[in-house]
Amino acid sequence: MSSGTHSTPDTPAGNVAADPADPATLVDRLRAGLPAEAVLTDPDITASYANDMASFCEAGTPAVVVLPRTVEQVQHVMRTATELRVPVVPQGARTGLSGAANASDGCVVLSLVKMDRIIEISPVDRIAVVEPGVVNATLSRAVGEHGLYYPPDPSSWETCTIGGNIGTASGGLCCVKYGVTAEYVLGLDVVLADGRLMSTGRRTAKGVAGYDLTRLFVGSEGSLGIVVRAILALKPQPPQQLVLAAEFGSAAEACDAVCRIMEGGHVPSLLELMDRTTIRAVNALAQMGLPETTEALLLAAFDTPDPAADLAAVGALCEAAGATQVVPAEDAAESELLLQARRLSLTALEGVKGTTMIDDVCVPRSRLGDMLEGVERIAEKYSLTIGVCAHAGDGNTHPTVCFDAADPDESRRARESFDEIMALGLELGGTITGEHGVGVLKKEWLARELGPVGVEMQRAVKAAFDPHHLLNPGKLF
Amino acid sequence: MSSGTHSTPDTPAGNVAADPADPATLVDRLRAGLPAEAVLTDPDITASYANDMASFCEAGTPAVVVLPRTVEQVQHVMRTATELRVPVVPQGARTGLSGAANASDGCVVLSLVKMDRIIEISPVDRIAVVEPGVVNATLSRAVGEHGLYYPPDPSSWETCTIGGNIGTASGGLCCVKYGVTAEYVLGLDVVLADGRLMSTGRRTAKGVAGYDLTRLFVGSEGSLGIVVRAILALKPQPPQQLVLAAEFGSAAEACDAVCRIMEGGHVPSLLELMDRTTIRAVNALAQMGLPETTEALLLAAFDTPDPAADLAAVGALCEAAGATQVVPAEDAAESELLLQARRLSLTALEGVKGTTMIDDVCVPRSRLGDMLEGVERIAEKYSLTIGVCAHAGDGNTHPTVCFDAADPDESRRARESFDEIMALGLELGGTITGEHGVGVLKKEWLARELGPVGVEMQRAVKAAFDPHHLLNPGKLF
Repeated sequence: MSSGTHSTPDTPAGNVAADPADPATLVDRLRAGLPAEAVLTDPDITASYANDMASFCEAGTPAVVVLPRTVEQVQHVMRTATELRVPVVPQGARTGLSGAANASDGCVVLSLVKMDRIIEISPVDRIAVVEPGVVNATLSRAVGEHGLYYPPDPSSWETCTIGGNIGTASGGLCCVKYGVTAEYVLGLDVVLADGRLMSTGRRTAKGVAGYDLTRLFVGSEGSLGIVVRAILALKPQPPQQLVLAAEFGSAAEACDAVCRIMEGGHVPSLLELMDRTTIRAVNALAQMGLPETTEALLLAAFDTPDPAADLAAVGALCEAAGATQVVPAEDAAESELLLQARRLSLTALEGVKGTTMIDDVCVPRSRLGDMLEGVERIAEKYSLTIGVCAHAGDGNTHPTVCFDAADPDESRRARESFDEIMALGLELGGTITGEHGVGVLKKEWLARELGPVGVEMQRAVKAAFDPHHLLNPGKLF
Repeated sequence: MSSGTHSTPDTPAGNVAADPADPATLVDRLRAGLPAEAVLTDPDITASYANDMASFCEAGTPAVVVLPRTVEQVQHVMRTATELRVPVVPQGARTGLSGAANASDGCVVLSLVKMDRIIEISPVDRIAVVEPGVVNATLSRAVGEHGLYYPPDPSSWETCTIGGNIGTASGGLCCVKYGVTAEYVLGLDVVLADGRLMSTGRRTAKGVAGYDLTRLFVGSEGSLGIVVRAILALKPQPPQQLVLAAEFGSAAEACDAVCRIMEGGHVPSLLELMDRTTIRAVNALAQMGLPETTEALLLAAFDTPDPAADLAAVGALCEAAGATQVVPAEDAAESELLLQARRLSLTALEGVKGTTMIDDVCVPRSRLGDMLEGVERIAEKYSLTIGVCAHAGDGNTHPTVCFDAADPDESRRARESFDEIMALGLELGGTITGEHGVGVLKKEWLARELGPVGVEMQRAVKAAFDPHHLLNPGKLF
């Protein structure tokens, strides 16, 4: 293996370069194959492309931002970057939470947001063919008009792009029933580091021709190639879901209810948990009237033909686990009202101290109770407010560390607690990231999760696709 | 990229070897780390491990067959093979249909069938942890006792192993609703070519830590590493399915019905099609009393809470598409009876001429009608009997070429028609293999489907994991 060749990810100057010292050369070469308005060099503007939505992540200063509209233009950008040995950082809407879209110094920021066409929607084949800049909500609504459903629904769905969703393998609220982005990517067109175009996968329901490079690209955070077109699988639109809220006197009881529901063979379309800290933050923000005595709130939904029957069964399991109150919605409007509290959770927690750092640890759902207990212990240890909301049915927790970024000591404690939460997740047989990705934020932790052999093989795969280490360098590992 | 390094896949002598000329050295070295009964050298016995169930595929003579029972023993085999530069062909139950498990001359056949323990079944986490030699049906029954369901159901499910299913990314009848093996593999332990152990993936419902090497291994036909343990996702056991049979006066009408059913948003648990040739072969074999005037038979099933209602809706769509008769089963026994004909299809087609060659072309389901029409044209052109049964809901067809292997001219025509069917599949936007894999049988066609850039990148991935080209050489590309 060639593990010795990965040591200069952040410094383009470390590579064999044609003439990288002169940014003018780079910009001139890019302009030769791009329309004038697609090449941005004004530092005030390019600086605004420096980072995504993660806190605590280093970000460099891009040399130039390009906004191609065609596959050929992307190929031109990559050919130029490879010739000049300049790193390229691909970006979507920059709603990511791990710094995976952060610029590195002197890089080309390759924003795909202008490639935003929905090329095809086929109700018979149940597929959509899209460019990477299509916004998740735009696609969801467009397929909805054909009675179809694109499930992945990250909370940024109104602004995030499909390309970004593919890069980070996004999840969302519906994953407990419908899975994550990876399950919906059938085929990709990818511009490789050297500018060549590669097609992977298929537009058929099944296909096993060769290695599954399509799924290798999903979640690769732009480090293996530039996705310029995607064939996505769609589902038929399910019936409107009906929601139940259950209040518990302890987080342990709520987690017990989650286990009973899943062990009982139920398939909820949503199974979310909010802890005491989150409930209080939401109450403070929006006066939702959630009882202050409630220590945990569980939200379950079903989009089955008879959701009321499913809610009754799940409500009984919640009561058996100790729920103090069970409130099933009777219609869509009531359901929406119950979900409001969950939707406001992150905003509410941001209000606590001004800044948050959102962990994304996923544990086997049988260990969810241990996870919540451990986070409470960590919050106490560091004298911090850490609220947990969780995609409980998946065991995917979002412990959200609230802190004042202007307070250096609190910031340090925030980062330490954030790391300790990841350590706890690994200890419980979980992963450091269920859906947000690694980016810059969790690089060191990825190595811990994968171990030395795993990291070496991941680097070997990276080297196979990107021998000069130009694609989103410094991310993942 | 290193495309120049792939030229000696079949000849271990072409590599830098320690002492490969002497098979005694190899066997002695293997015996040093394996129990006596795990190393087979009797040529009469080792010859029986030469091939899987594919026709027309070259197979070499193994030097030795090993049957390890532990991970450490597999590591010993791979360390030895790498030191001596001897190729290794991993095998499960050898029920594959593309020659992917065929031996190459002088290789070590590494049979995983003795590693057959089910290590864990967790109803709360909905996972099973298994060794690769566990038989699919054994696992299915074991999880069934916990109210759980492992969906992938290749027709060899009573004998094929989970390791083989992972190697070939197996499908089955239930894929139209439940997807293929890839959807159910969460994590793997893999022994690499040099004997090191790598863990990939997770035991959690979600996880995006680094590149998805787990799915890269699924369908890699033993060419990247040896799977020694798998964490599999399970579903809750669905209600018993109810089946409907619909008879059509033409294949085109049956295909139209498939499109109407899928476009209508239905989610059948099975949607199978048999063409006229297949129906007649089944009638000849088993006197099932299928009307000889029927040109196509469609079988649809639902495992929903109210399957009779779903069958009624789908029956109406079949009638609208021109079905001459629609027969919904009223219970499980009647359903089983209707499925008998489908289950007998391949056996019946084998009876036509003694030998069959089973294609596995998957097309977008909107092109299913064109596919069936094209196969009929090809059968006429080559004066051959070609029966088609299809996982119609997936567009996955199994055109089955019937021929007399003792007749050289007919055999030649059989192979030519087999290839022409793959060409047709690609022309219709499909893939050469929906679920059977590439192996030896479809190597040339894989290159056509992937194109030169795709093949080069696949080879680069192969080289990253297997720099000496020892793992199942000569397969895929």
